[in-house]
Amino acid sequence: MSTTHLTVYLSGEIHSDWRERIETGCRGLELPVTFVSPNTHHASSDGCGEAILGDETSPFWRDHKAAKLNAIRTRTLLNQADIVVVRFGEKYRQWNAAFDAGWAAAKGLPVIVLHPPELGHALKEVDAAALAVAQTPEQVVEILRYTVTSTL
Amino acid sequence: MSTTHLTVYLSGEIHSDWRERIETGCRGLELPVTFVSPNTHHASSDGCGEAILGDETSPFWRDHKAAKLNAIRTRTLLNQADIVVVRFGEKYRQWNAAFDAGWAAAKGLPVIVLHPPELGHALKEVDAAALAVAQTPEQVVEILRYTVTSTL
Amino acid sequence: MSTTHLTVYLSGEIHSDWRERIETGCRGLELPVTFVSPNTHHASSDGCGEAILGDETSPFWRDHKAAKLNAIRTRTLLNQADIVVVRFGEKYRQWNAAFDAGWAAAKGLPVIVLHPPELGHALKEVDAAALAVAQTPEQVVEILRYTVTSTL
Amino acid sequence: MSTTHLTVYLSGEIHSDWRERIETGCRGLELPVTFVSPNTHHASSDGCGEAILGDETSPFWRDHKAAKLNAIRTRTLLNQADIVVVRFGEKYRQWNAAFDAGWAAAKGLPVIVLHPPELGHALKEVDAAALAVAQTPEQVVEILRYTVTSTL
Amino acid sequence: MSTTHLTVYLSGEIHSDWRERIETGCRGLELPVTFVSPNTHHASSDGCGEAILGDETSPFWRDHKAAKLNAIRTRTLLNQADIVVVRFGEKYRQWNAAFDAGWAAAKGLPVIVLHPPELGHALKEVDAAALAVAQTPEQVVEILRYTVTSTL
Amino acid sequence: MSTTHLTVYLSGEIHSDWRERIETGCRGLELPVTFVSPNTHHASSDGCGEAILGDETSPFWRDHKAAKLNAIRTRTLLNQADIVVVRFGEKYRQWNAAFDAGWAAAKGLPVIVLHPPELGHALKEVDAAALAVAQTPEQVVEILRYTVTSTL
Amino acid sequence: MSTTHLTVYLSGEIHSDWRERIETGCRGLELPVTFVSPNTHHASSDGCGEAILGDETSPFWRDHKAAKLNAIRTRTLLNQADIVVVRFGEKYRQWNAAFDAGWAAAKGLPVIVLHPPELGHALKEVDAAALAVAQTPEQVVEILRYTVTSTL
Amino acid sequence: MSTTHLTVYLSGEIHSDWRERIETGCRGLELPVTFVSPNTHHASSDGCGEAILGDETSPFWRDHKAAKLNAIRTRTLLNQADIVVVRFGEKYRQWNAAFDAGWAAAKGLPVIVLHPPELGHALKEVDAAALAVAQTPEQVVEILRYTVTSTL
Repeated sequence: MSTTHLTVYLSGEIHSDWRERIETGCRGLELPVTFVSPNTHHASSDGCGEAILGDETSPFWRDHKAAKLNAIRTRTLLNQADIVVVRFGEKYRQWNAAFDAGWAAAKGLPVIVLHPPELGHALKEVDAAALAVAQTPEQVVEILRYTVTSTL
Repeated sequence: MSTTHLTVYLSGEIHSDWRERIETGCRGLELPVTFVSPNTHHASSDGCGEAILGDETSPFWRDHKAAKLNAIRTRTLLNQADIVVVRFGEKYRQWNAAFDAGWAAAKGLPVIVLHPPELGHALKEVDAAALAVAQTPEQVVEILRYTVTSTL
Repeated sequence: MSTTHLTVYLSGEIHSDWRERIETGCRGLELPVTFVSPNTHHASSDGCGEAILGDETSPFWRDHKAAKLNAIRTRTLLNQADIVVVRFGEKYRQWNAAFDAGWAAAKGLPVIVLHPPELGHALKEVDAAALAVAQTPEQVVEILRYTVTSTL
Repeated sequence: MSTTHLTVYLSGEIHSDWRERIETGCRGLELPVTFVSPNTHHASSDGCGEAILGDETSPFWRDHKAAKLNAIRTRTLLNQADIVVVRFGEKYRQWNAAFDAGWAAAKGLPVIVLHPPELGHALKEVDAAALAVAQTPEQVVEILRYTVTSTL
Repeated sequence: MSTTHLTVYLSGEIHSDWRERIETGCRGLELPVTFVSPNTHHASSDGCGEAILGDETSPFWRDHKAAKLNAIRTRTLLNQADIVVVRFGEKYRQWNAAFDAGWAAAKGLPVIVLHPPELGHALKEVDAAALAVAQTPEQVVEILRYTVTSTL
Repeated sequence: MSTTHLTVYLSGEIHSDWRERIETGCRGLELPVTFVSPNTHHASSDGCGEAILGDETSPFWRDHKAAKLNAIRTRTLLNQADIVVVRFGEKYRQWNAAFDAGWAAAKGLPVIVLHPPELGHALKEVDAAALAVAQTPEQVVEILRYTVTSTL
Repeated sequence: MSTTHLTVYLSGEIHSDWRERIETGCRGLELPVTFVSPNTHHASSDGCGEAILGDETSPFWRDHKAAKLNAIRTRTLLNQADIVVVRFGEKYRQWNAAFDAGWAAAKGLPVIVLHPPELGHALKEVDAAALAVAQTPEQVVEILRYTVTSTL
Repeated sequence: MSTTHLTVYLSGEIHSDWRERIETGCRGLELPVTFVSPNTHHASSDGCGEAILGDETSPFWRDHKAAKLNAIRTRTLLNQADIVVVRFGEKYRQWNAAFDAGWAAAKGLPVIVLHPPELGHALKEVDAAALAVAQTPEQVVEILRYTVTSTL
């Protein structure tokens, strides 16, 4: 039986090391998984619109241009992904992560949600559309390992 | 030229009167618009799973059952809607609203976002996928009137 | 807020009165729900192919012709349905019910599964794709009532 | 004329050697076919949810978590497959196999069903949606060989 | 249990009375079926392009304009149909009927093929994609009656 | 044989009376056709964004807000249309009309293009994706009459 | 500017050397094109069902089993193709070729039709759905060369 | 985190060096981007239909044959593209570019529009459907670099 290569999109929180922990964990296991993600640098993610396409006087349009530029990457990678992992943390509202989860679910992509248990009630609709709800990046590594190898 | 009937799904915040203001405004204008929405009663929305399908000992599964029951209504109405309005307020995280916005955008439905300007930066990705970003329910009424009548 | 009309497809077991109990229950509540179902008469369901298109000497082709004739109704109604309820009972293998559930899930239709708790382990993959798992027809009535009215 | 590479998903029965016989047969013929399948180990397939995401007190949720974890693999592989083979045996109800067949048919994937002739009547709806109904793994090997090489 | 309304597209042969026999048969049974079809008048079907959009010197473009005008009706009605009946007769090549059958099958519409048994070998690929192969218009009436009423 | 009701979207040029001529022509023939169109008033089409959602200092964002508001109507009506007529005239660049034609063609909707013959070379790619290329509104009336009645 | 690799499906007539002429022509030009096709051997194409899955007493089911086995290859290759070439000759009715053309057109694949000019009137609906109508295999080679290289 | 390979389709204006500037810019940065485009040679693009498929007496059909041949390339490449860049210049009407933009937007592909600011008002509907509106090819290079590398 062949193993298959997976492309996994990592959406959400950018202020903690969850992506690194998932990648490091999977690399240590030599899993055939490619990880992709949105731009995770806060400053360039906010400033890219003005930096590339010119200054704006209104904060709304500044954000608008940046969000659309970022969407070029996001849409392209979501179109190429097999599985989407969406991470929510305590600090931020991360509506973009929930938006990505809705998009992925509508497209029929398997969604894994990662958040601390305290956020469970607020995230119940997102969790209800997911195939797994993990609390730690290490659990996501285990899920990906199990998905690839079918062994515990 | 004929006018067309619209079915508009109103997603998001349930603790203010924005839905009533939009409905009252459109009814006053006699617009051919039908409004549908998720269950907007907090208690039944949280408790429906246990009330109908039996008690749970874990809060996670209590929420899970409820969220899935609510999704029966949400999915059905999103499948029938022409336009989706998504409302975000200051108080709650409303990840379900952002999830609905992602779902609607992925399905190619026109999305109108309604939120106070202070939330613009946090909502920039959702706004970037919308066809209009309004600040008041009355603006949404105006948008729907314009969509139906093509007059200002 | 408007209520919406639902078309509900009732798939599965044909040797008990679960369909009648759901329909009677919803009619008593005057819910705006139309119920449709496959042919539920065992003999005509098995014999329709030969009766209409001529005798067969092989049981395989006898079944094949009948199953395809029944699929004309099934596919058409699944294409028109908003929600699919799938019922499994103790006695039969009902692979057609599980097939319908897979079809409905792949098409993005909300699925409600109805079965006694003893079948839960064997049906775990089907349940995992459903938005609700009920044990009695009366619970399905309650789910449909809640879906339509948003009240408990 | 070029031959093409096929990815074949093998769904269903896990307590007999049908997968091995198909794989061995195709390998012996040096066919350009990659085989993928769900987790076929009964114990890990049932226990994965608890092992990775924590214990449950209710058997329903134990099964639910496991079934959803397994669905991450199943959905991903069904999305990547060219052809789906679904095997039914005498002993188990295998509603998941019928569910996979319904899903594959709804997505327009060619389906091959493999079962002993005694199950033909009970499986007539699934067979009716298939492009071939085989009785032995060796017939499936022949079908795949014929699909690839166009020779008998 | 409700009966459902069906829209049935009648594609193919235009030189016999098969459409009338199906319509008369279903009307006599008071079935809730609407029949639609391509233009069945040979002369206007061939000449419509020139009659409406101007003369052509080349027979190829004369046919091309006519075929495309006819496709406006065909595509629209296929988009609205629940079921497609495709009729083949002895005399003509009716590639357009086989084209419609391929289109309908690709879109997931139930297809019924109607032809004399002598054509079975030549039509085997089309028959293989159909849910029923009838030999007489009266059998199609019976199929539609059975589809609507579930009784023999 | 039943006639069918058509919803026809009229896209493009807003400075001539082509829509009125098509509607008057079809009304005179009592055809069962509903016509819908984008906002055809130049000033409100340009100014709607500022009028409803507030002033802009930059002409780019003024246009952007207006174009998106207009797209709410356009997308909704294109989603509801059976047939799309796209009109090009001599004076304007009408890139929005060509955009609508591309959108409609990608969605599989029958497209009729209406333009003077002098524009044929510049419009050859749009014409190549259409099912009819008319030169006068009266020809479009004839096409719709023929589509509905199958008579010349 | 990069050239792209094309996968071209060659459907239709099996009793002339048109496939060889197209393949030889493209190989001589070193075009990056892979050709795939249905089984083109008449005897095995007719007999595969019985040879692999067992004898039938009725010619209808003999054909049915064979046609479905062949469809496993056809569907898989059509799902992988970029462009479909469909060839019609004088001698046979080739309804399967027209069926493939309808399928390909419904899926949005570019279709090239190849037939002698005498068949133009009978094939006008198929030609109307194609992007090119060629009379000789050498013209198809030229079309593919032009598609790849953009030079005449 | 992996970078991803992008296939970018460059649609529109053929009389300036914008494609070369984008390609040269990306090559200088060693970005993993493949560029594809329609035939950009005016003469062969206009004459291909006659050159390959024979002369026409009418300019309309001459253009029609050519436009359809060019569409074989265009459709195939749009089907393979991740991102579409559409360029509009001052001189030509370029309805085909706007058509490509509509097609790409309907298919959910990210669209980047490139035009001088003076064309903004006329292109507002196309711009409204795009994720970025650039004024220079160098800005497009920057966008692609940012999309691939997530750095400014």
